Amino acid sequence: MINERIRSEMLLSKLTTAEVAARFIKDGDTVATSGFTPSGYPKAVPLALAERAKAGEKVEITLITGASVGPELDGILAEVGVIKRRFPYQTDARMRNAINDGEIKYADMHLSHVPQYMDYGFFGDIDVAIIEAIAINADGGIVPSTSVGVSPQAVKNAKKVIIEINTSQSMDLEGIHDIYMTQKPPFREPIPITKSGDRIGTTYIPCDPDKIVAIVETNITDKVRPLGAIDEDSKMISKHIIKFLENEVTAGRLPENLLPLQSGVGSVANAVLGGLVDSNFTNLTCYTEVIQDSMFDLIDAGKVTVASGTSFTPSEEGLKRLNDNMAHYAKYCVLRPMEISNNPEVARRLGVISINTAIEIDMYGHVNSTNIMGSRMMNGLGGSGDYTRNAYISIFTTVSTAKDGDISSIVPMASHVDHTEHDVQIVVTEQGLADLRGLSPKERARVIIENCAHPDYREMLVDYLDRAEQTKFKHESQLMDEALSWHARFLATGSMKK
Amino acid sequence: MINERIRSEMLLSKLTTAEVAARFIKDGDTVATSGFTPSGYPKAVPLALAERAKAGEKVEITLITGASVGPELDGILAEVGVIKRRFPYQTDARMRNAINDGEIKYADMHLSHVPQYMDYGFFGDIDVAIIEAIAINADGGIVPSTSVGVSPQAVKNAKKVIIEINTSQSMDLEGIHDIYMTQKPPFREPIPITKSGDRIGTTYIPCDPDKIVAIVETNITDKVRPLGAIDEDSKMISKHIIKFLENEVTAGRLPENLLPLQSGVGSVANAVLGGLVDSNFTNLTCYTEVIQDSMFDLIDAGKVTVASGTSFTPSEEGLKRLNDNMAHYAKYCVLRPMEISNNPEVARRLGVISINTAIEIDMYGHVNSTNIMGSRMMNGLGGSGDYTRNAYISIFTTVSTAKDGDISSIVPMASHVDHTEHDVQIVVTEQGLADLRGLSPKERARVIIENCAHPDYREMLVDYLDRAEQTKFKHESQLMDEALSWHARFLATGSMKK
Repeated sequence: MINERIRSEMLLSKLTTAEVAARFIKDGDTVATSGFTPSGYPKAVPLALAERAKAGEKVEITLITGASVGPELDGILAEVGVIKRRFPYQTDARMRNAINDGEIKYADMHLSHVPQYMDYGFFGDIDVAIIEAIAINADGGIVPSTSVGVSPQAVKNAKKVIIEINTSQSMDLEGIHDIYMTQKPPFREPIPITKSGDRIGTTYIPCDPDKIVAIVETNITDKVRPLGAIDEDSKMISKHIIKFLENEVTAGRLPENLLPLQSGVGSVANAVLGGLVDSNFTNLTCYTEVIQDSMFDLIDAGKVTVASGTSFTPSEEGLKRLNDNMAHYAKYCVLRPMEISNNPEVARRLGVISINTAIEIDMYGHVNSTNIMGSRMMNGLGGSGDYTRNAYISIFTTVSTAKDGDISSIVPMASHVDHTEHDVQIVVTEQGLADLRGLSPKERARVIIENCAHPDYREMLVDYLDRAEQTKFKHESQLMDEALSWHARFLATGSMKK
Repeated sequence: MINERIRSEMLLSKLTTAEVAARFIKDGDTVATSGFTPSGYPKAVPLALAERAKAGEKVEITLITGASVGPELDGILAEVGVIKRRFPYQTDARMRNAINDGEIKYADMHLSHVPQYMDYGFFGDIDVAIIEAIAINADGGIVPSTSVGVSPQAVKNAKKVIIEINTSQSMDLEGIHDIYMTQKPPFREPIPITKSGDRIGTTYIPCDPDKIVAIVETNITDKVRPLGAIDEDSKMISKHIIKFLENEVTAGRLPENLLPLQSGVGSVANAVLGGLVDSNFTNLTCYTEVIQDSMFDLIDAGKVTVASGTSFTPSEEGLKRLNDNMAHYAKYCVLRPMEISNNPEVARRLGVISINTAIEIDMYGHVNSTNIMGSRMMNGLGGSGDYTRNAYISIFTTVSTAKDGDISSIVPMASHVDHTEHDVQIVVTEQGLADLRGLSPKERARVIIENCAHPDYREMLVDYLDRAEQTKFKHESQLMDEALSWHARFLATGSMKK
């Protein structure tokens, strides 16, 4: 019943079609939407907007989201040329290609910067916000669906708000959200979270009902993505991490139930976290961005007592499992605005153990999370930087080779740097784990090569390092005419091997 | 009178010579000391320790300080081979040479990481702390001198504490310090600072008097460094920044009295801040690491109402001015532990405007703060990363060329990355200012080249960028076989010019 979801007559009078709602978006507008991973993003209105472009109308927008979104938003609008500028993260193949072809101007940002960029006015005016919701309260309060992302700031700053009421989303989501926003400096106060599960806000996003220009009903489901099967490499990476964490507990450097875990998005991250199901750890907590399938396993195994994120990011089976048992999982989960889930203040206070994936890691510990061979944008760095620098322990994982062994993920110099040596403490591949804490660069290089590089590349790395250290400067030696030669060779020959 | 400074009979009984005190330091020890810039570091005991090494005794230590320290500690101990490992920052020429020669293992760290590394046990045991103080209270409470740095955590974690009572330091310093320490996760609470001048702690560092093994009296002065004369380039950089800030106020993106300023250490940083004396800004506040000479000018000009830092870092004239007017300046200044002065939580809450210096900046906005030509360690990144990523606006400055024009500070690719494109918003050289907010990489490249690069290098940069953008990937294009060729050319020929 739509009356359960649109909770006043005044609001019901704004119910309209996606086509009519999309008319509020003008050429040149900056549009901010809900959505974080393919969860909780608007679908019907973007599809209607795409139809206008297909019909030949010139309508070009700047799109700001929480993170990646599904094909009805990023994919189709990139394809029909509606999106001209994009912030702050994406994973859709059509969007990625348009970025790498130079057709869409993309700025890859720390996710925690996005909400405050909006509040500070650095994006300029936000013309329209499009927010997927499960319901709207009589006072305009918007109850989000499977993600929160940047929606609170989008609603706060937008001139016009369009709501998509998505009836495919479970009403049991109501109550799971915890909406809290900071004030702008100089009026910002401490964020009063001291434990992962603390609730400090409202279960809805406050919204002046007069700003709501249209409400659209839809039942298009989140286009969740399959998670890769848990492979041997992921299992090995997970084992190395669990052994390391056990040692830290034994050494007295971590509590027995660890500290709140943060884990990136994707199959490897899901597998790494999933490995904890078979560990001896209990009473674990998570303070992270995305709640993936393995989190449900950990909850059901009685391992995790609370999971705080900004999004559910399940596979198709995971989504069914979540929807069938929402009331159950809701007891363990909190969905927060990404301003809070990714906040450096909270991450450092709680002392998160951050686990993020890298594209490549160099021998001194610099991490490339974004640009393959220095220039090909993959997705973006997402929240990895928000957590990493403020973590109690920061961990980066990568499989030691890619492209059937033709690419070494451990290289002399990273071809693009998203996380510097100052922010990377633990490096893990299927080969092993390197603990870089307290080491000088030349010590780091030896332990990364020995413990993490694939055997096929170890000699080449040692050879490079030895020669670099014969130059005049022996602190963090690099050969300027050779540091990126592995990448140049791959681009020329299809292999980093000699 | 030493009784005014050592405030109990029990403590007076621990008064001894530097030679005796230095005997508490054993071969293999990890020693943590006071000191942040050449201010408030221990002097007499390190000099006595050096004598033991000179006499042929094998005594090798790991040294952890707040930041850089003076020659009596870093310089002489590096020279006589006592320091084998060093954290987290240094500026002494002998120390720097020993690091670049590979003789001392150095890890360049974010300063905010150092106190918690100590608390978390990541440095291992802290055997001895040596703390310069102006006084010790009867309960053991240590009143620091001209800096605080990592002293609170050094005292807390050390097995033995040695105090140097330095009678050259003004007793009027008492009351200026605000000592507050966080708990380790999972017990950490919000840091209750909401304004630069908030006082939240004690005026002394708590210390169990039983841990104090020796107290030494000395009058060796801080070996402060001269500040370079304010040159034309610095004046231009300062003017560009002030104009930018004025525009931000006009656009409504900053309050009229701005937000707390953070400014790095050194002559250029001093000059940049000093430029504000002639601006129209009033009621300014500072939340920074170091309080340099120009801050006294700003206070005396009625421009700055409060300056929070972890250290006074004056020139020789500045030190005299400070000492002659300590009671006056103490009304405006707070010295905090670097855990607090550099804390991401506080920096983001207050919304600091961070202004830091770069060695080189690449056309996409990545900043090298540490390694000249990719390999020669200069000082370290210090606190720049703590502030930059959490700033309201992050600004990096550099003069557009070095070595009489043979080095361009704007390069195709940074030869070492300490701050990534994600963290750098404003780039300023004497040529002009580039506002990178919201720009895609290729837009950033054009505005940095046009506004900031030296005219001698603009054509070369545009030529490189044009050719890079003709490759397959047009988002943040680089040529892997040419990206570092400018550095290779300089190393081979002494000039980046063709």
